[in-house]
Amino acid sequence: LDYQHVQVPFEITLWIMLASLAKIGFHLYNKLPSVVPESCLLIFVGLIMGGIIYGLNDRSPPVMDSDIFFLYLLPPIVLDAGYFMPSRPFFENIGTILLYAVVGTVWNVFGIGFSLYGICRVKAFGLQDVSLLHNLLFGSLIAAVDPVAVLAVFEEIHVNEKLHILVFGESLLNDAVTVVLYKLFRSFCEMPTIKSVDVFAGVGKFFVVGLGGVLVGLSFGFTAAFTTRFTKDIRVIEPLFVFLYSYLSYLTAEMFHLSGIVAIISCAMGMKRYVEANISLKSHTTVKYFMKMWSSVSDTLIFIFLGVSTIGENHEWNWPYICFTVIFCLVWRALGVLVLTFFVNRFHVNTITSKDQFIIAYGGLRGAICFSLVFLLPDFHRKKLFIAATTVVILFTVFVQGMTIRPLVDLLAVKRKRESAPTVGEQIHIRFLDHLLAGIEDISGHWGQYYWKDKLEYFNSKYLQKILLREYDQPKSSIVLLYEKLERKHAIELAQAGQLGHGPAHPSFLCSGFLCSNNDRAVITDQKLEDSPNPDVLDNMQEILARNLYRIRRTGPAYNRHTLPGDPEPTEQAKEILILRHKSL
Amino acid sequence: LDYQHVQVPFEITLWIMLASLAKIGFHLYNKLPSVVPESCLLIFVGLIMGGIIYGLNDRSPPVMDSDIFFLYLLPPIVLDAGYFMPSRPFFENIGTILLYAVVGTVWNVFGIGFSLYGICRVKAFGLQDVSLLHNLLFGSLIAAVDPVAVLAVFEEIHVNEKLHILVFGESLLNDAVTVVLYKLFRSFCEMPTIKSVDVFAGVGKFFVVGLGGVLVGLSFGFTAAFTTRFTKDIRVIEPLFVFLYSYLSYLTAEMFHLSGIVAIISCAMGMKRYVEANISLKSHTTVKYFMKMWSSVSDTLIFIFLGVSTIGENHEWNWPYICFTVIFCLVWRALGVLVLTFFVNRFHVNTITSKDQFIIAYGGLRGAICFSLVFLLPDFHRKKLFIAATTVVILFTVFVQGMTIRPLVDLLAVKRKRESAPTVGEQIHIRFLDHLLAGIEDISGHWGQYYWKDKLEYFNSKYLQKILLREYDQPKSSIVLLYEKLERKHAIELAQAGQLGHGPAHPSFLCSGFLCSNNDRAVITDQKLEDSPNPDVLDNMQEILARNLYRIRRTGPAYNRHTLPGDPEPTEQAKEILILRHKSL
Repeated sequence: LDYQHVQVPFEITLWIMLASLAKIGFHLYNKLPSVVPESCLLIFVGLIMGGIIYGLNDRSPPVMDSDIFFLYLLPPIVLDAGYFMPSRPFFENIGTILLYAVVGTVWNVFGIGFSLYGICRVKAFGLQDVSLLHNLLFGSLIAAVDPVAVLAVFEEIHVNEKLHILVFGESLLNDAVTVVLYKLFRSFCEMPTIKSVDVFAGVGKFFVVGLGGVLVGLSFGFTAAFTTRFTKDIRVIEPLFVFLYSYLSYLTAEMFHLSGIVAIISCAMGMKRYVEANISLKSHTTVKYFMKMWSSVSDTLIFIFLGVSTIGENHEWNWPYICFTVIFCLVWRALGVLVLTFFVNRFHVNTITSKDQFIIAYGGLRGAICFSLVFLLPDFHRKKLFIAATTVVILFTVFVQGMTIRPLVDLLAVKRKRESAPTVGEQIHIRFLDHLLAGIEDISGHWGQYYWKDKLEYFNSKYLQKILLREYDQPKSSIVLLYEKLERKHAIELAQAGQLGHGPAHPSFLCSGFLCSNNDRAVITDQKLEDSPNPDVLDNMQEILARNLYRIRRTGPAYNRHTLPGDPEPTEQAKEILILRHKSL
Repeated sequence: LDYQHVQVPFEITLWIMLASLAKIGFHLYNKLPSVVPESCLLIFVGLIMGGIIYGLNDRSPPVMDSDIFFLYLLPPIVLDAGYFMPSRPFFENIGTILLYAVVGTVWNVFGIGFSLYGICRVKAFGLQDVSLLHNLLFGSLIAAVDPVAVLAVFEEIHVNEKLHILVFGESLLNDAVTVVLYKLFRSFCEMPTIKSVDVFAGVGKFFVVGLGGVLVGLSFGFTAAFTTRFTKDIRVIEPLFVFLYSYLSYLTAEMFHLSGIVAIISCAMGMKRYVEANISLKSHTTVKYFMKMWSSVSDTLIFIFLGVSTIGENHEWNWPYICFTVIFCLVWRALGVLVLTFFVNRFHVNTITSKDQFIIAYGGLRGAICFSLVFLLPDFHRKKLFIAATTVVILFTVFVQGMTIRPLVDLLAVKRKRESAPTVGEQIHIRFLDHLLAGIEDISGHWGQYYWKDKLEYFNSKYLQKILLREYDQPKSSIVLLYEKLERKHAIELAQAGQLGHGPAHPSFLCSGFLCSNNDRAVITDQKLEDSPNPDVLDNMQEILARNLYRIRRTGPAYNRHTLPGDPEPTEQAKEILILRHKSL
């Protein structure tokens, strides 16, 4: 037996296996995940595992290594989040998100830091040795909402899209603030005196860290898109580039002390549309599914490790400090959301309701990022107290808030995510309004988001697409694509009906069949149709489209001539095939 | 700048990126890969890289770590090889393959070892200090044909299936022999005296190592299949199990000093049909594509590292020894193939021609496995000589043999792989003959391969499928599946023709559309149809099938009743849909 030799990969594989099996286990009992969020169950499994390890070895189980967390576990989750980020609501609410992420986080850091310092001044608690700077440092790591925890809970409760993107976007973008404040306070702690110039440098640094992250991410993203232009002959390694470049963007950003999370998100969002158009359908499926799989495993491992790391002797229990930390986290977040939303609502027509505000405040879950940061603190005599407080805050938010948020959403009747995809009519109107508003903004000289969106789209189609796309071609209208898809679906149903009975119109079948033949830009409408549950609506759509698009079909027989090998007379041939088919039936 | 922090993942990512970009680079010039095998080009890139590193640092570049090779780079390639192994030709030729792999390898080891010892006895060469045991140890590592190198070259030359499986199967299965002999001689080198009992223990060990590997692999494979029974609710982590269990089988085998390669191949071959039936289509696509991608990257990295590691000061140049090593490798392999094939041909009707024998002998490429093994040798004063000889043998086989084998195959007019898939008629006859021969063998009391195949199939459908498959259901005949597929393809073409002109019958589209709706067992015929280039043959097939399968369709309307939600009268509904469709057209 030679265990030493294979130990590292063997143990990693076993941990992943444990995580995956735990996930399967939860889903065998269908009722469990609908009551308790998966993250709680996983922490629970971790606690049990930690208990077992502690019992067997009689010493603390190994805690999650911060390096492993930041270098290997976090990037897949953030990449997944960035790649599948719904870009329209994100950019529509980018102002509000940034306000929450930047001002809100700073507010929380200083609020929590100063109030905890107040607690430390109370002699009865015996905490006089914790300085203001240490409290602020602790505040900077405990204040930030955690994207992993937020994602785990909010994916299950299906609140409306705007609410979701506000909480989730904040949790992602506050990374830049957290990085700056955490490093600032940590270096302040080690400095003998702090000059005012250092404070201003810190403020300036925030812009460097955030915008630098965006820049690094976008440059890697565009390089990735450019690289996939040349993979036509070796489809097999296409998916790799998506992962390699995004990971490199993360590592590069981390290397220069920029925000890795911001970098990987910009990279993913920047490359997505070009990469999707360049790579083959099967590569795209591989990218999508592998990304989901990887982030799901990372997520599982993080929560299990959180549980395992909780057990042990790293903690110093000072009840007042810990309890007040939890209370201040809740109070300052609630106050921050109230105040900020007040200003946001003054400048927006589509306001954030008080129910939404409550859910935003209540959904501020803390998670593994705080936990990793607290272990990265330089050693000082109260580190164990901070570890204990962080652990309690995380467990409180994940268990208490995570488990009660779903009933609260039900109770408050918070607006849910709409179940059905937007209809064709809605899509047309949305697009129409976009153009209209861009025009109005242009005429009125108000450079709002529609104006910029229009300019960006122009820049994209004029320059970026030509450089980054393999075969540059005006994309088809999504309505034409939808029509093609419905036609194809109908044809397949017909074939199935011929021998299988009326088989279920298998949505994955439908979509993959469609995607294959139009593997360039068909992806756009894919998700919409797949989500749509109503066959009547689809039939209706198809009918309208068939009636109205017949002319398009006639006047533009070679619509996609540049990508399909041309036939002398496509319409003639089509008729012939139809006639033949009639005869054979 | 904090490079230390991200160094490990950053450098790994950069190496993979270099490998992928090199691959893209080769394929940009279409002519290059058709003349020079990719493996040669990659070694060449590695040599240049190594030269640059050597020039910049003025010291040897780091050699490929044997642990990294055996634990991380080799498993993906072997997994890919095992998972996509064509099982029919493999099992049909298993006897011959084992003969080549076991007897042939032993023959080569002792042949090369003893003749090199003879060279060492010649005083003029100054090699008297190399003992017989050391020569045999060297022989044991240099004798084995390398699966990675063989795969890289044989994938490009498209020889007939039997020839391919003979060389490739040998290269995979000789791992057990290599492991045993290498470890045996290494321990003999360190023993003061060798008893005869040790030699017999070595022979016994071979069976343990080989059969133990098979056993470990199969048990992990079946566990994997069993696990995927329960993943219906969390499709997202399904692909993971394929990778986790196969990797665990490899690591477990390595841990117990069994043959990891044999284990991972048995695992992959054992689990494949059950896993494919259990997991969703998209998971399956992810598994397939990710496996191909991973093995392709591993392969690329291995050859680049081979090149990089060649540069440096690890070599002791003794020309006679090195030249004779190359010659003996060629001669003993040629002799071995001749002698063994003579015996094989006496017992087979379908003999191996002399052209085939030449290609088998000539295709015995050495690669990274030898290279890693020679670095794992215990330190002794002639280790650098062995490293030099191994490097030369590898470079000679990969460059000279690898580059000349394609012209030789052309020149000798070696039978090529047939381009078209077997026709329906052939398939029916093959299946018919299988049953017939199983019956004949049963009656005549000769327990040949058909008898065992039949028994295994019985055991599989009676027990294994019930335990390992999620919804156990008699699989459809592949002919019915083929018919369904053609029907569907026709329908899709029709829909496409309606507006796109006669689009190309995109093969990937066709197959994925088909797979989706029959995502259970349709995979069987998938590959065949996709390979088939002749549309006339397909049309013909469809016509015949449509005529003959109409009755099946009529008498078995609910053929797949257990997996599809039942409709009161499927045939009625089908007719109705057809009539409606006619009207709408």
